[in-house]
Amino acid sequence: MKLLQVDTLQEAREKLLQAAGQVALQTETIPLAASLGRILAQDVRTEEPIPSFRRSSVDGYAVRSGDTAGATENIPVFLEIIEEVSIGKPSTVPIRPGTCAYVPTGGMIPEGADAMVMVEYTELFDPEHVAVNAAVSSGKYMVDIGEDMPAGTQVLARGTRIGPAQAGALAAAGVAQVLVYRPWKVAVLSTGDELVPVEQVPGPGQVRDVNTWALCGCVAQCGMEVAEARFLADQEEALEEAIRRMAGACDLLLVSGGSSQGKKDMTMELLDRISGGGVFTHGLALKPGKPTILGCAPQTGTILAGLPGHPSAAVTVFCLLFQWLWRQVTGQPEALPVPARMETNLASAAGKTTCLPVRLIPRGGELLARPILGKSGLITILSEADGYILVDMKREGLKKDETVQVYRYF
Amino acid sequence: MKLLQVDTLQEAREKLLQAAGQVALQTETIPLAASLGRILAQDVRTEEPIPSFRRSSVDGYAVRSGDTAGATENIPVFLEIIEEVSIGKPSTVPIRPGTCAYVPTGGMIPEGADAMVMVEYTELFDPEHVAVNAAVSSGKYMVDIGEDMPAGTQVLARGTRIGPAQAGALAAAGVAQVLVYRPWKVAVLSTGDELVPVEQVPGPGQVRDVNTWALCGCVAQCGMEVAEARFLADQEEALEEAIRRMAGACDLLLVSGGSSQGKKDMTMELLDRISGGGVFTHGLALKPGKPTILGCAPQTGTILAGLPGHPSAAVTVFCLLFQWLWRQVTGQPEALPVPARMETNLASAAGKTTCLPVRLIPRGGELLARPILGKSGLITILSEADGYILVDMKREGLKKDETVQVYRYF
Repeated sequence: MKLLQVDTLQEAREKLLQAAGQVALQTETIPLAASLGRILAQDVRTEEPIPSFRRSSVDGYAVRSGDTAGATENIPVFLEIIEEVSIGKPSTVPIRPGTCAYVPTGGMIPEGADAMVMVEYTELFDPEHVAVNAAVSSGKYMVDIGEDMPAGTQVLARGTRIGPAQAGALAAAGVAQVLVYRPWKVAVLSTGDELVPVEQVPGPGQVRDVNTWALCGCVAQCGMEVAEARFLADQEEALEEAIRRMAGACDLLLVSGGSSQGKKDMTMELLDRISGGGVFTHGLALKPGKPTILGCAPQTGTILAGLPGHPSAAVTVFCLLFQWLWRQVTGQPEALPVPARMETNLASAAGKTTCLPVRLIPRGGELLARPILGKSGLITILSEADGYILVDMKREGLKKDETVQVYRYF
Repeated sequence: MKLLQVDTLQEAREKLLQAAGQVALQTETIPLAASLGRILAQDVRTEEPIPSFRRSSVDGYAVRSGDTAGATENIPVFLEIIEEVSIGKPSTVPIRPGTCAYVPTGGMIPEGADAMVMVEYTELFDPEHVAVNAAVSSGKYMVDIGEDMPAGTQVLARGTRIGPAQAGALAAAGVAQVLVYRPWKVAVLSTGDELVPVEQVPGPGQVRDVNTWALCGCVAQCGMEVAEARFLADQEEALEEAIRRMAGACDLLLVSGGSSQGKKDMTMELLDRISGGGVFTHGLALKPGKPTILGCAPQTGTILAGLPGHPSAAVTVFCLLFQWLWRQVTGQPEALPVPARMETNLASAAGKTTCLPVRLIPRGGELLARPILGKSGLITILSEADGYILVDMKREGLKKDETVQVYRYF
């Protein structure tokens, strides 16, 4: 057995990033309608200027602004109406001095005109003439060609997660087919003789399999794809066969297991064996998350992970390592933490990073961070949390009222 | 035409909530594997205590703590090993005075024992006897039955959105089939003679249909279901036929249209006609979002909405009204805003609520809110935003450095 030296969170992240870099991230082109939640694999620019025509922003008359000089309610200016522009149709008649055209909001302003007069400042004199009661300056109430976005403007950057507004922006830019990253295929394997399926009432010594469900949720929530998920008893040959087979068919294999020494050793042994000695992290200076094993199978580039058996620890490690890694490789911006004030003092162990789940409580315009404590690895610790704080390994705790940065789990 | 009086955001929300209350929200039972992102329709309790057996939290020996009294490295206590408990299996032999059993982490502690001694504080004397080098107090390194959660504990509350941790908590509680709210079916109709499909290069006076994409994204992001989505030209008979048909087959109909007076009047007229006079809101004291029309078709309980034509205004109104409404009717907690400091002064119009999109910029442990300004309804205003501020209708602006509450769009 190898000499065991734990990595810091930072060291583990660097090793993972290097391992992930050995395999090119794949992209695929999908219809806009299927793109919600996906990650853009290229910058998107608008080819045409937006708007592509001079657009009115009010209901009214397109005029030559010079014609309205000095117009007031008492001394209006009379203009001949030479066209009624319809929404969605080109204007056809240029505006000469002394003439105008009716244009609704969003309609195209005819050539020759350089401003709009709102209908509220006009009075129809006869079907062919309008009285203008106010002067307008050039450019008033109109949007010029490309004023919103000149042609070639970057609308969205590579690494953007496509939400509702981004889907709209893609539509505006005419992107009907979207180049996105192909999600990593992730296999999830929970191991343990104590595990029973969710439908079963656990007997003495048994517990329900929780990690498969929680980890599959993590994978999907990050925008990756669950390739296979199951749990297995601790039978070495069967485990090795399953791990070999699953690792060959996925980009990331998550094996979660018990916390006993024998279990940890067996997972490490198996991952090291199938990767030909590819395990590079034999534990993390992280609480919870110490029994984390990381490696890479060099033939396929599959990333291998042994996660803690405690559900809350397994989810924590997933978020800190694999959610982080997927964001990194796809160019997504770093998650933005929320500042909050600690509600209480809290001790933490120096020498390891502590990931502390908290509730956020609004109080007087601020947010208070209330630690969620629990001695076990209960999943409900996380299901009650609004986010987590990372306590630096150099710190020995957090002080009441100090400002902390709270990250969302997803 | 009716006398037009705009509602405040609060008034519109109250009317919508009342309208939504006329139709019972439906529930459905789905497999746990399909429940991610869905909303729990009932409280979930654990039937069995967790853990359901006395569980060791270390690798070591289950002992009667009294037997270890006074044990030190120099004067160890010798105990007979009468069983090796396996993970997932019941322990079978009660611990009598002078005996102990090996139990791995997570294993079941035999009857009679009341504490664990970590293997680090023991030495194997012969295969049947162990020397214990330290005294332990009763209850040490073990988790009692129900100590994590007594039977009947509420694990998750009605209205909880099921994320990874919640999926794990449901598995722990043995909930293989989950009672969730059936998503509202939402129909999305964008109207306008100027609209062309995303694949088409807009001609003079034309623009690409953006609202259908943005609004479908909104609907899906909130956990509702898009029943149908399309755009249509402004031809009154065709529109009326489409609106009647779509309203009959959905819980919520979103019609977005232009901002010209004629367009607004036609949408209001059509929604009022098909609902038999069911329109109850004829505009909002909200910027952007003034040309918003709300109503309810009494026969089916379908909620009808006319949204602004500008994409960013349509998305804003969706978030403030329909995301809010869906959260309300499904019992989801109110969205938690993030405190930030205004980066600049900003004027707003008193008499209406202003919804101001902002970027959040980390600065010295705090977040600065930087307004995103733009005179048009460009969707990119929202695709660049981290969230929005609601400026009260009594305010005439926000001051640099004042603390504001920033809501996420989704």
